[in-house]
Amino acid sequence: MPLYDARLRCGILAKCAAMQARRAVNIGSNDHRRRILTPMILAEPALDLIFRQARTHNGWLDRAVDDETLRALYDLLKWGPTSANCSPARIIFVRPRQAKERLRPALSVGNLEKTMAAPVTAIIGHDLHFYDKLPRLFPHTDARSWFAGKEEASRTTAFRNGTLQGAYLIIAARALGLDCGPMSGFDHAKVDAEFFPGGTVKSNFLCNLGYGDPAKLFARNPRLPFDEACQVL
Amino acid sequence: MPLYDARLRCGILAKCAAMQARRAVNIGSNDHRRRILTPMILAEPALDLIFRQARTHNGWLDRAVDDETLRALYDLLKWGPTSANCSPARIIFVRPRQAKERLRPALSVGNLEKTMAAPVTAIIGHDLHFYDKLPRLFPHTDARSWFAGKEEASRTTAFRNGTLQGAYLIIAARALGLDCGPMSGFDHAKVDAEFFPGGTVKSNFLCNLGYGDPAKLFARNPRLPFDEACQVL
Repeated sequence: MPLYDARLRCGILAKCAAMQARRAVNIGSNDHRRRILTPMILAEPALDLIFRQARTHNGWLDRAVDDETLRALYDLLKWGPTSANCSPARIIFVRPRQAKERLRPALSVGNLEKTMAAPVTAIIGHDLHFYDKLPRLFPHTDARSWFAGKEEASRTTAFRNGTLQGAYLIIAARALGLDCGPMSGFDHAKVDAEFFPGGTVKSNFLCNLGYGDPAKLFARNPRLPFDEACQVL
Repeated sequence: MPLYDARLRCGILAKCAAMQARRAVNIGSNDHRRRILTPMILAEPALDLIFRQARTHNGWLDRAVDDETLRALYDLLKWGPTSANCSPARIIFVRPRQAKERLRPALSVGNLEKTMAAPVTAIIGHDLHFYDKLPRLFPHTDARSWFAGKEEASRTTAFRNGTLQGAYLIIAARALGLDCGPMSGFDHAKVDAEFFPGGTVKSNFLCNLGYGDPAKLFARNPRLPFDEACQVL
């Protein structure tokens, strides 16, 4: 079980986990006031790991990503919120060389080499007929009727929520020690024909996954300052 | 500085932060091999905080969210990856009662009361003319020309990447101890006319922010099992 091995080898984080677990038990056994006064927040290195120091990777170390890690990844990202719990993302993890070759014709020149070299390439798609699962995913009302037969609403909802789930995948991967290389520059129709031949699932973006080679990072680009992207009323 | 106060009160997390910071320094002073053998991953309670135990909230405790927290939120979410660093999200944090009243006519009945009661409602929009900032955000090539005058590509890119940034906002908020209540069921045209009158920014979804009242949570809905949402090739 590589994930747990990794954590055991990382003694300090394991100790933190144990301490935080005890704290969680304490919170659970008290009333809500304690949580109100002391909301749990992530420690600075955790914020660095998932946001501040995380980078989009272009080169990959020679280290595989196993099935168990991919399942752990889904078992985190699945909890992220979607509209009426509609969960439209459909993800194909492409790993072996011969499967990667099926991606090659759809890749842009700039994304080709790094994608062929990545341990895994996740194809994040969304199911336009996601509403057929709503009686199970959102059982207390007839949410299926909000979307069935309403093509534009379904398409927008599938794209919006599948994209949210793609972002949860990126953050969850980083939380599990993986690095990401997301890309939307590819031939969507070719990917759909090759990987989603049923026609109701549409590709959204690709995300290389693995352990990034820091030596192959580009310089980091600036972000917009708060006042250019946000207003507080 | 409320964020830091909260962390100081939370002694165990502060201790973990210090231990992890020392570890980070150790990693920095070694070669890459050490990181390869022991990738840093989030501890279990941290995964609980941002994914597994986090819930969409409908009721809010009587506790304000201050400007500094909103700036800290943006200073995390801004680091999440977007296509060519295009960063199209434009966010309005709606806090005072009179500004909330401007939202009221656009809200669906089911979302009305909880949104009026939330300490902050974030309107997550995306700028269709995001490409005008690319010479600054992605300066090493003429990325503006990939989008300027190409309305469909621009619209799709703005929506996809603004949505990714909306998901980063949700996870970053949880990482800072906030609770979220995201919603896409509202009258987008009314919100655009009232809050984005320039016409180039389009509303995507709303997200209530505050400290959730656990007593007002709904029962959690199930998620799709791995094999229904994912394939491993």
